[in-house]
Amino acid sequence: MTDHPRFVTFSGNRYGLVHGNGIIDLTDDYPYPSLREAIADGALPRMSQTRRSPDVDLDDATLGIPIPGPEKIICVGVNFPDRNAEYKDGKEQPPNPSLFVRFPRSFVGHNQNIVRPAESPQLDYEGEVVIVIGKHGRRISEKDAYNHIAAITLSNEGTVRDWVRHAKFNVTQGKNWDRSGAIGPWLVPFTDAAQLDDIALETRVNGEIRQSDRTSRMVFSFRKIVAYVSTFTTLIPGDVLICGTPIGAGARFDPPQWLKPGDVIEVEADGIGCLRNGVEDEA
Amino acid sequence: MTDHPRFVTFSGNRYGLVHGNGIIDLTDDYPYPSLREAIADGALPRMSQTRRSPDVDLDDATLGIPIPGPEKIICVGVNFPDRNAEYKDGKEQPPNPSLFVRFPRSFVGHNQNIVRPAESPQLDYEGEVVIVIGKHGRRISEKDAYNHIAAITLSNEGTVRDWVRHAKFNVTQGKNWDRSGAIGPWLVPFTDAAQLDDIALETRVNGEIRQSDRTSRMVFSFRKIVAYVSTFTTLIPGDVLICGTPIGAGARFDPPQWLKPGDVIEVEADGIGCLRNGVEDEA
Repeated sequence: MTDHPRFVTFSGNRYGLVHGNGIIDLTDDYPYPSLREAIADGALPRMSQTRRSPDVDLDDATLGIPIPGPEKIICVGVNFPDRNAEYKDGKEQPPNPSLFVRFPRSFVGHNQNIVRPAESPQLDYEGEVVIVIGKHGRRISEKDAYNHIAAITLSNEGTVRDWVRHAKFNVTQGKNWDRSGAIGPWLVPFTDAAQLDDIALETRVNGEIRQSDRTSRMVFSFRKIVAYVSTFTTLIPGDVLICGTPIGAGARFDPPQWLKPGDVIEVEADGIGCLRNGVEDEA
Repeated sequence: MTDHPRFVTFSGNRYGLVHGNGIIDLTDDYPYPSLREAIADGALPRMSQTRRSPDVDLDDATLGIPIPGPEKIICVGVNFPDRNAEYKDGKEQPPNPSLFVRFPRSFVGHNQNIVRPAESPQLDYEGEVVIVIGKHGRRISEKDAYNHIAAITLSNEGTVRDWVRHAKFNVTQGKNWDRSGAIGPWLVPFTDAAQLDDIALETRVNGEIRQSDRTSRMVFSFRKIVAYVSTFTTLIPGDVLICGTPIGAGARFDPPQWLKPGDVIEVEADGIGCLRNGVEDEA
């Protein structure tokens, strides 16, 4: 893991490179509004070369989501083996990925608490791998898809489960509670297919393993997701694709295991890191 | 209609006030990046007072969507009488609105052509009333909802119908083809409940009336939509809520009446105006 550079967003729109236990603040060295524009400018490799003493202690920094204002955050549903069966609706796995959208304000950064709202006790976790687009494209081929990925990170794609089924169609309202999920801990530049093709993804709650699978078993591969989504919409630098969760979310236990204040959720993947978040009730 | 001021976005992020057949360009008079920030600053009433000769001919201007980069565009599905029955799935009207999200690049402005993609012949229209949020709020009461609306406009919430049912859940991919819908023609500041409570909404294709209903018959009122959406997400100035379409989309005819190049769709509502768009095949 220490092989790869790691970029964080902190204290609002400041950004920097993790070095040891600190952050080298790059905000004044590179004139970008945020990491989104740094990615658009292809600057991550150059910024990765910075070597100097950290400016901020990593533990003291308030980390935000790595791309504070992406044009799009698109999430893929039902994308690991047996996830379709978990729905127990007798329906076949469909030929295309389910897609929904989240707004940035539904996420917090690494080490921040996610929020259980007053309206529902059914706050749930979903550990996922996240890809960040680096290059503008429409109708990107699966073969070319990896050339359009600038960086990778993780998400706890936190969900208010009963609100997912509030209406006739769509899961929007169960997936967009303010501060109900997390993205982070940092962006790792994507330079090698091995960083995505077959990595272990694990979610733990209070240290107990709840989800564990490998990306090689995804129903719709990262390449397929980039190709499919870019069929209908132009992907641009900074766009965030959250690529689906293995079986084992809290809703699937009998009785369900909802998150409660004081719980700690860790989403970890090979070569990316470990995204850790507590849970609190809304103030 | 001429009673109400009308604000347009044109030539990228320029904005102005419609006056007769022209546009008074206000971009240099008011230092906002776009109408979104003008709304956030509460500047529309002040800007409405401008009286001078227009700078640009309305017919010569390339109009964009009124808020070029909103934080959110949230659409309401199945929100007029008999729309639920059109789905013929034997399910009751649910107690809450269906919500989905569109990205700005899925829309064009007034008088621009919407685009039929190579992947599907099933481009369809949906005429809708649009509200634009003017004031930050979470858990807004229905009683207070109208105080959070800054302006109103219209949408042809154009849909690639077969792609709406591509996957297990959600309509995202059928609702987000680049340039497949429209918002406009302009923003009308919202100052009086009568501008929304019971207005006629009509959609015509090549002059033929296809959809016609009144907002008083909406299943979920504008007030209810603002209250419900703000339960889970903080609404901020410039957020766009597209509030649902009456029966009579092309998919509901037998055989279906899909849009084709050369068609002209008009979405018209009392006191707002008429949004007019042609159709073209993707270049």
